Amino acid sequence: MSRGLSDFHVGQRFESPVVTVDETRALDFARQFDPQPFHLDDQAASQSLFKGLATSGWFTASMSFRLIFESGMDLHGGIIGRQIESLQWPRPLRPGDTMRVVTTVARVERSDKNPRYGALVFDHEAFNQNDETVLRMRSHVLAQDPVP
Amino acid sequence: MSRGLSDFHVGQRFESPVVTVDETRALDFARQFDPQPFHLDDQAASQSLFKGLATSGWFTASMSFRLIFESGMDLHGGIIGRQIESLQWPRPLRPGDTMRVVTTVARVERSDKNPRYGALVFDHEAFNQNDETVLRMRSHVLAQDPVP
Repeated sequence: MSRGLSDFHVGQRFESPVVTVDETRALDFARQFDPQPFHLDDQAASQSLFKGLATSGWFTASMSFRLIFESGMDLHGGIIGRQIESLQWPRPLRPGDTMRVVTTVARVERSDKNPRYGALVFDHEAFNQNDETVLRMRSHVLAQDPVP
Repeated sequence: MSRGLSDFHVGQRFESPVVTVDETRALDFARQFDPQPFHLDDQAASQSLFKGLATSGWFTASMSFRLIFESGMDLHGGIIGRQIESLQWPRPLRPGDTMRVVTTVARVERSDKNPRYGALVFDHEAFNQNDETVLRMRSHVLAQDPVP
């Protein structure tokens, strides 16, 4: 059973599974989308601001989305983002780290014109194995109730 | 020669190369990070809000970053994002589309405390082959002048 717009309320919380960040996947991603030395090479990374190999922020964001998707919110019609209101990377995620995401419902918006439709505003926070925040994001996602 | 903080000014514009969106890469990405039917299956996608196969918004964002990186801004110390202020996907990007990104400097911020360092605020807009906007983003990126 999927959840419709009516099944969400402010403060509702979803917890993702925990995954370990695979170095090969992080490097493949960096080669494809963000080929900077501090995402690819230990030596260069140790002399950078990151002080060691760090995943691309876009890898961290994409991994976070996968974990959000696996958090059991099971949104009717799928998770379709309308916009990201803010996205921050307070500290680097590193290959070998474990990672999980906590999502909280910040707002439930129903369309006046078409009340079966609306949007959900979510706050997402991704943590590493030391419970340090590696990503913080506020997203606006389309939501609908099923046809009655 | 890389560009330091002093080499940027508001209104400065960078244009990326043009690339074609490879279907195999878009599907691989979706399988790994965003395995929803409208990103993976033509039939399901045609019946969705997207009315046809659409890339994951995180693929669109990651591709955009690669194009931004290839736009010749050649920032001293690399492109390290501090935050994304906003990110929107006004219309879907589709496999086979071509794509390019235009970046404009919106703000140049210099640290009072340590004037060799600061941040650049960029507005990025990604277009498809019909000059329709597929992504709009405002980013804050660390910047520094080289040691004199």
